[in-house]
Amino acid sequence: MSNELNGNDPNEQLAGLRDQIDELDQQLVDLLAKRALVTTKVGQIKSHTGMPTYVPEREAQLIQSRRQQAEKAGVPPDLVEDLLRRIMRESYLTQNSEYRCATVKGTKIAVIGGKGALGKLIVSLFERSHYDVLVIDKDEWPDAQRLLAGVKLCLVAVPIKQTINVIKTLTYLDDDCVLADITSVKHGPLNAMMDAHAGPVVGLHPMFGPDSPGMVKQVVIVCHGRGAAQYDWLLQQMTTWGAQLHESDASVHDADMAYIQVMRHFTSFVYGAHLHAEDPDLASLIAHSSPIYRLELAMVGRLFAQDPNLYADIIFDNPQNLALLKRFRTRFDEAIALFEANDKAQFVEQFAHISKWFGDYAKTCLVDSKQLLLKADDDRMLRKK
Amino acid sequence: MSNELNGNDPNEQLAGLRDQIDELDQQLVDLLAKRALVTTKVGQIKSHTGMPTYVPEREAQLIQSRRQQAEKAGVPPDLVEDLLRRIMRESYLTQNSEYRCATVKGTKIAVIGGKGALGKLIVSLFERSHYDVLVIDKDEWPDAQRLLAGVKLCLVAVPIKQTINVIKTLTYLDDDCVLADITSVKHGPLNAMMDAHAGPVVGLHPMFGPDSPGMVKQVVIVCHGRGAAQYDWLLQQMTTWGAQLHESDASVHDADMAYIQVMRHFTSFVYGAHLHAEDPDLASLIAHSSPIYRLELAMVGRLFAQDPNLYADIIFDNPQNLALLKRFRTRFDEAIALFEANDKAQFVEQFAHISKWFGDYAKTCLVDSKQLLLKADDDRMLRKK
Repeated sequence: MSNELNGNDPNEQLAGLRDQIDELDQQLVDLLAKRALVTTKVGQIKSHTGMPTYVPEREAQLIQSRRQQAEKAGVPPDLVEDLLRRIMRESYLTQNSEYRCATVKGTKIAVIGGKGALGKLIVSLFERSHYDVLVIDKDEWPDAQRLLAGVKLCLVAVPIKQTINVIKTLTYLDDDCVLADITSVKHGPLNAMMDAHAGPVVGLHPMFGPDSPGMVKQVVIVCHGRGAAQYDWLLQQMTTWGAQLHESDASVHDADMAYIQVMRHFTSFVYGAHLHAEDPDLASLIAHSSPIYRLELAMVGRLFAQDPNLYADIIFDNPQNLALLKRFRTRFDEAIALFEANDKAQFVEQFAHISKWFGDYAKTCLVDSKQLLLKADDDRMLRKK
Repeated sequence: MSNELNGNDPNEQLAGLRDQIDELDQQLVDLLAKRALVTTKVGQIKSHTGMPTYVPEREAQLIQSRRQQAEKAGVPPDLVEDLLRRIMRESYLTQNSEYRCATVKGTKIAVIGGKGALGKLIVSLFERSHYDVLVIDKDEWPDAQRLLAGVKLCLVAVPIKQTINVIKTLTYLDDDCVLADITSVKHGPLNAMMDAHAGPVVGLHPMFGPDSPGMVKQVVIVCHGRGAAQYDWLLQQMTTWGAQLHESDASVHDADMAYIQVMRHFTSFVYGAHLHAEDPDLASLIAHSSPIYRLELAMVGRLFAQDPNLYADIIFDNPQNLALLKRFRTRFDEAIALFEANDKAQFVEQFAHISKWFGDYAKTCLVDSKQLLLKADDDRMLRKK
């Protein structure tokens, strides 16, 4: 109704401005197309020369320059940084059609379990790095000894419950063959590999799932076995793929995993079992949830879209987990007792102790999760049923 | 070492390509500056005419057109959509320096607790919508009766444990004054408001925290009390701010909140208490966590960066929560018993039942959380200690 702006019809004005926005957004798409052509060339040079895909310093410098320009132009620097990081994520994907081989091209290697989800990803990375990759799965297994003769790397990528049994059979590998595994526990498989094979041995735990588009920026835990000089090329190769390697002791790694994986899966399972038994209206729960609660519910819900056998194995296959979970239950009981005694003061005091234990990390978590929710909100994620 | 590309030094080639990338990225920043000028004008027209800030259809159409263009230009449409959504989030912020007033400009309203975190945000929204806003906090409270004479809206925004006591005193409001609250429980406060005040009454629960940049796209639960026609302008005003209103029964809302908030906070508390008591090396846990586990740990850690008293109140102030949490403990015991009996088959069967209960939502959660982790990864969030 108001004509305060220019004396024109506001709907017409709005239409004109929207045309201008569409024109600018078209230019944005054109710009992205041009940028992709350039980054594809960058990828070609890197793969020919073996330069690493991910160069943190270049990335930091690129972002810093654009943030400074944004500041001068009155554009929020955080907006520019978010956009550039999203664009770079895409360009890492398109850059990596092939990689430099960290050893002699055509080197023969084998991936046992290479038809599994994570196995496939690793096979593809080796193939794109000019290795001669032998995939050994159920069908090839009876003939494994013959097939594995002459391979320079035998990588065990079978499900966790089969790992040790598979390793125990690998007594016939060539002395110069590297034996490695990618199981999410490390102590047992590493010992089994040391027993079965006299040559170089290394335990690996890639800290990402098969849905990851590659190894760029991903953490891989390395537990050294023996003959590090002989498998150095394998670690180099993963670095070329963009991985960040972390060395760890196998037992320390496994203890950490009990806290990280087992406790989390178990509590999510119980949380889901409780909701199922209480049977509230899920659609209503979701509608009444703010983004942070939707995210928390999603962390439980996502478990139940996955393979129950995998989680049964992760939880049940280590008897130490039972003791850990029983101590967890004791803490649950203690908290219930506080509630029953209506002892808010003690709750607040315990809370403060735990906060102190988390230290600065608690604040980091709060900041990161808020940022993440803003991103979820851009996509209207976590909104729909 | 390889000169296969153009016969030039690969480092020189790379430097040239990087210059081209920098040039394109500069153009991107320029484009964003131009776009912000146009969207600021859009915001001015909307605030003058009272058109809603968030128009889902326009947003969908804008994105669809650019996706189609991207497809033709060989640019991933998802990349373009992600970038546009991020740009639009920013433009909602800059558009909203002022809003149209949904009733008579200069209408006198009061926010009790308006110096609290969420109170401040709401005061600012009303002020930017041309209301005459009276902030009543501790200092003004003794004089509240005199101050509140003649206000058309009295909005209670005090901490949850004070809400009902504050409401009980509000027996002196003018008959045409709307009495409303924004507490995260609704049954008790709504009843208290109906008892204290004979005029229009409505319970609100904004489903977001004070760190939200505004109400754009946020859910607000509306529990009707009496005299809906007389507070229609208030609902209209929230829609102008971009809110999405959801009507709900107060008791249904509260039962849902017990599942959504109380169970979650309680389990996060116990999870934190357990980690604190076990005392693993937190830095090592984080280094050994893949992004999904870091996110799950962050969901626990973030609790402990917040005010323990708030959580004590949310959990302890409703005795029904105790019964719910005791049933939760029973389910915990049942799961431990499965583990003790090494009954994987039963675990897998229960898992399948729960999956069925979650239905398609489980898959949605999985997909959404994967998307979200990619975004977290762009920002190297959840990586650092």
